[in-house]
Amino acid sequence: MTNIGVIGCGYWGPNLIRNFFQMPEAEMKIAADLSQDRLKYLQSLYPGLSITTDYMDIIDNPEIDAVAIATPVFTHRRFVMEALAKGKHVFVEKPMASSLKDARDMIALAEKMQKRLMVGHTFEYHAAVRKIKEIIDSGELGDVYYINSQRLNLGLFQKDINVVWDLAPHDISIILYLLGKEPEEIVTTGTCHVNPEIQDVATVSMTFKDNIIAFIQCSWLDPNKVRKMTIVGSKKMLVYDDIQQNEKLWIFDKGVDVPSHYDTFADFQYSYRYGDITIPKIDNYEPLKFELQHFVECIENGGTPQTDGQNGLRVVKILEAAQHSIDNGGKRIRFDMD
Amino acid sequence: MTNIGVIGCGYWGPNLIRNFFQMPEAEMKIAADLSQDRLKYLQSLYPGLSITTDYMDIIDNPEIDAVAIATPVFTHRRFVMEALAKGKHVFVEKPMASSLKDARDMIALAEKMQKRLMVGHTFEYHAAVRKIKEIIDSGELGDVYYINSQRLNLGLFQKDINVVWDLAPHDISIILYLLGKEPEEIVTTGTCHVNPEIQDVATVSMTFKDNIIAFIQCSWLDPNKVRKMTIVGSKKMLVYDDIQQNEKLWIFDKGVDVPSHYDTFADFQYSYRYGDITIPKIDNYEPLKFELQHFVECIENGGTPQTDGQNGLRVVKILEAAQHSIDNGGKRIRFDMD
Amino acid sequence: MTNIGVIGCGYWGPNLIRNFFQMPEAEMKIAADLSQDRLKYLQSLYPGLSITTDYMDIIDNPEIDAVAIATPVFTHRRFVMEALAKGKHVFVEKPMASSLKDARDMIALAEKMQKRLMVGHTFEYHAAVRKIKEIIDSGELGDVYYINSQRLNLGLFQKDINVVWDLAPHDISIILYLLGKEPEEIVTTGTCHVNPEIQDVATVSMTFKDNIIAFIQCSWLDPNKVRKMTIVGSKKMLVYDDIQQNEKLWIFDKGVDVPSHYDTFADFQYSYRYGDITIPKIDNYEPLKFELQHFVECIENGGTPQTDGQNGLRVVKILEAAQHSIDNGGKRIRFDMD
Amino acid sequence: MTNIGVIGCGYWGPNLIRNFFQMPEAEMKIAADLSQDRLKYLQSLYPGLSITTDYMDIIDNPEIDAVAIATPVFTHRRFVMEALAKGKHVFVEKPMASSLKDARDMIALAEKMQKRLMVGHTFEYHAAVRKIKEIIDSGELGDVYYINSQRLNLGLFQKDINVVWDLAPHDISIILYLLGKEPEEIVTTGTCHVNPEIQDVATVSMTFKDNIIAFIQCSWLDPNKVRKMTIVGSKKMLVYDDIQQNEKLWIFDKGVDVPSHYDTFADFQYSYRYGDITIPKIDNYEPLKFELQHFVECIENGGTPQTDGQNGLRVVKILEAAQHSIDNGGKRIRFDMD
Repeated sequence: MTNIGVIGCGYWGPNLIRNFFQMPEAEMKIAADLSQDRLKYLQSLYPGLSITTDYMDIIDNPEIDAVAIATPVFTHRRFVMEALAKGKHVFVEKPMASSLKDARDMIALAEKMQKRLMVGHTFEYHAAVRKIKEIIDSGELGDVYYINSQRLNLGLFQKDINVVWDLAPHDISIILYLLGKEPEEIVTTGTCHVNPEIQDVATVSMTFKDNIIAFIQCSWLDPNKVRKMTIVGSKKMLVYDDIQQNEKLWIFDKGVDVPSHYDTFADFQYSYRYGDITIPKIDNYEPLKFELQHFVECIENGGTPQTDGQNGLRVVKILEAAQHSIDNGGKRIRFDMD
Repeated sequence: MTNIGVIGCGYWGPNLIRNFFQMPEAEMKIAADLSQDRLKYLQSLYPGLSITTDYMDIIDNPEIDAVAIATPVFTHRRFVMEALAKGKHVFVEKPMASSLKDARDMIALAEKMQKRLMVGHTFEYHAAVRKIKEIIDSGELGDVYYINSQRLNLGLFQKDINVVWDLAPHDISIILYLLGKEPEEIVTTGTCHVNPEIQDVATVSMTFKDNIIAFIQCSWLDPNKVRKMTIVGSKKMLVYDDIQQNEKLWIFDKGVDVPSHYDTFADFQYSYRYGDITIPKIDNYEPLKFELQHFVECIENGGTPQTDGQNGLRVVKILEAAQHSIDNGGKRIRFDMD
Repeated sequence: MTNIGVIGCGYWGPNLIRNFFQMPEAEMKIAADLSQDRLKYLQSLYPGLSITTDYMDIIDNPEIDAVAIATPVFTHRRFVMEALAKGKHVFVEKPMASSLKDARDMIALAEKMQKRLMVGHTFEYHAAVRKIKEIIDSGELGDVYYINSQRLNLGLFQKDINVVWDLAPHDISIILYLLGKEPEEIVTTGTCHVNPEIQDVATVSMTFKDNIIAFIQCSWLDPNKVRKMTIVGSKKMLVYDDIQQNEKLWIFDKGVDVPSHYDTFADFQYSYRYGDITIPKIDNYEPLKFELQHFVECIENGGTPQTDGQNGLRVVKILEAAQHSIDNGGKRIRFDMD
Repeated sequence: MTNIGVIGCGYWGPNLIRNFFQMPEAEMKIAADLSQDRLKYLQSLYPGLSITTDYMDIIDNPEIDAVAIATPVFTHRRFVMEALAKGKHVFVEKPMASSLKDARDMIALAEKMQKRLMVGHTFEYHAAVRKIKEIIDSGELGDVYYINSQRLNLGLFQKDINVVWDLAPHDISIILYLLGKEPEEIVTTGTCHVNPEIQDVATVSMTFKDNIIAFIQCSWLDPNKVRKMTIVGSKKMLVYDDIQQNEKLWIFDKGVDVPSHYDTFADFQYSYRYGDITIPKIDNYEPLKFELQHFVECIENGGTPQTDGQNGLRVVKILEAAQHSIDNGGKRIRFDMD
């Protein structure tokens, strides 16, 4: 049995609490937040829950094995480092840190303390994303040519981070997971409309080896909610529409065959293959439940979480580069190939 | 009565011929193409049509008042310049030229010869686009914040131009028309997948004065046909979905109110306004018909076409800059503010 | 404060319990079910809840003011009559009874005991349905011509009632509410496919005064979930698509104008009006919450529920006639105009 | 080479003319209509076409081999009988006749004259419908349980026939083709709203052997255009949505398994199978072209058209019964099993 404390009970924290409560292998012990009202409300839902406005009541508590952190990004460093230092396993929401340096420090400390450090990249535990990974790895799509992702909606506006730090971590995490590699270059443009200091609309272009390109569009200003990723391969194409309740994955058996050679004097037409569409059945479970179970299992059997510190760091590295690109008017950033 | 000759009877030319045939004010006289088969086929549809494989039969023909050109972009310069030199009015398909210099030469010659030069930016004659222009100009959307346009499909692959030159002219033309101004900066990224020399996927970001940003995504590799433009304003938002047969324009009465000031110590939430959606009725006519009638009217009454040489030049200027940006790995291009 | 007991904790009962728990004016005291497991599960969610497998513990309990019943239809008579007899106010799920006679007995007993009897016709408390009622009553649609309703899905198969008794009560209740009158005639056809004794597909046609017709299609065998009602009026038309999350109501400003007279020798074409579409904003609340609050308010201030016994009886009367029509191969049933 | 004359150049006739013109095996010779304007217009499109306001110029013309008739239904008898009597092959639009008697007379005369008589039930030549037939016949759906068809739109109102005679022939023809048998019973309800003499909204229920039921809803009063057919089988389900441009057929691998027996004392739940969805590729050709080619081929090689007189008669028989049912307030009509 793993005893859990949760720090941060705002927008996302209650989902952690609910899932830990329903997990037989975990004991959801105590929750911390600055708002007494939030805590009282949670206690009314979970009468057995201890509450506190002082997070040290969690971190100093020898009964607690693991701490889950769902606070604003700029506070992650403090909570993660202190919890690790006190010998707790740590689950931290995405993005794991506001800087590459912070992410590295967290990883180093977790290693030193021999504790699990896991980052909440939920989509890696999503049935549809795992199915896509399976499909790509099976070769069904052929070589991946490009990925186009849109994550658009109206609000919720964040006050401390821009739309890239808020929304793009999902797409970046999914894309790295699917491709199994990191980009070589990134260009990001973004603009501020509602709050003059915070980008609310942005486009991220990532270039990978083998000429793979991935675009991410993110916006807090769109009238419609869009969560859509298109993956074009040399053999087939796939659309993942997360807004659809049942038909989330569409596999198109149509593509473009490039003839190995052709007579330049002749009229040439690329050949098209059009074919059937398949919408495979996707298991219908809550990804967060699966994710938190994985966390508890890694604690209990000493395994490495799929979305461990290194995994989270890769996302932070791209976010930092994206920010640098935005701050320099869409400058092209080339990653060190070290 | 205006006598018309058409050069180029491939993919688009037959639409010009059909419309000129149905126009009482025009006499569709003669069509030129390199393919005798294409010409024979057209003559079977329009028994009265003269045909030729030598475009000089049109340009040298004193009976012909105006020449419409629907040939590959790289040939535009020759046909336009020769037709103008022989005193013909000229209608040329978009984009008008492969370079800014060519566009400027065409405009200069048209002025010298006192002839009409019109570019086929069809969407400026589209009922939905004109309705959007009306809505923006009425102030209904408030200040425009950003425009996001997607023009995606599978093929038709071009052999002489890339996806930006092929698809983006539509979006660029629409956006310049709607905003009534030119961008200050542009960043474009693109990659080649099917043909190693020709970009088939690209994203164009244009930045305008007053912090307006416009994104254009274009792709020949998408499994679904998408023609969608979202325009976000400070008051309302509009989605133009050109794939829809009847419901093309959606006006969302929801937006974000930024409070003029707020207490930084208090918890702050941006206010959202959600409201009704309106789908206005759009007149259902063929834009090309309206466009070609405008051309003939300008010839007959000496008016200036809405999409005249200057209008076409502005699009070419952006395309040239986009190409330069792509060729330099997504470099930011700043336009001279001359 | 009204003290509540709930009988029946299967599919729907837990929703009653959850809402009563969150209602400040009500005290959710005790729940009864035959399954000890269900009860234990509910107690784990609501630690303060008393549980029992003997419904008499609710009915005989002098502390309980009101009983809410969510059991199979054929048991309604027993529970409702006994609860009323013991002086409880009663809320009973729809349809209120398996026969007109039972419904009449319940109403008579409630009147004699001076207790509230309310039927759970939830859709009358749904924001979209109330908005439609407002629109019709305002005259915006003109005279209602016809209503076409579809309620289709795959399962859940019932074992004790057929698809008409299961699904059509919603549509019947909505249609009577919207039109404010009862049908004069009904024809119903239905067939059994999965279980040879229980109709799983059926169509109900109801004819009203003034030549209004309403069709209801209900099916447990449809691959897609459909909840759609079209209301055609002489001026406008309305589509209510309950599956849509945000765009539930579509008002079409298009209709048919019948000229008052016309020359029979001339070619005549009905004139069509096509116009804008409006999607009004609908308040986003849980109808059941609103409904149960209404129940408690009626108890506390002695008012008559909107969906009182008479309201529920009208639905049962139509269901009984529909069954009679099915059992006689689609026979036309004419209601007594008493 | 078959020489063709067309009688009736209103709404549909021009489509016949256009297709015959493009068919190498046919010579589109002459068209008749009462309107000189319509004829002049057609001649401007097809300069080689002869025109006449007197249909006898076609029927008496020894050069003409076959006559295609696209006139109002009540005139079919006269034109078909006269054309057959003069030794012409006849193609007549659907429905072939206004009465069973007329249909029988036509068939008898065609047999006597040894001429082809074909009815324009276009959907039997539609790639999607032929694909569905293939799927059903392969056993992929299992036993067909029921078919639900909707054919709804706003106008075009007919003046001489009601909505059942106008729209239902398509669905009836498709359903008979797919099931390969005729119904045993029919119930039809319909009402008049715009024109007090002509039903503009109706529902047809047909019952077949083996407990198969088919519903057809047809309406001229619906705000949205709907052309949708759902076919539920014991193994799989299929939706045919003719409004979709590319995704017309959806095959759902989900259904209901009925256990061969079960313990009545135990709680029983029907088992559901949910699975993949497949959208097969459908060939994209004009059904009318395929249909008219079939007509010309049958003339040239003496074959029997798929939609011959008997095929057309079966549809008329059902239409006549549907009308009888409507005229008797939704009376159940049982077909003679002769």
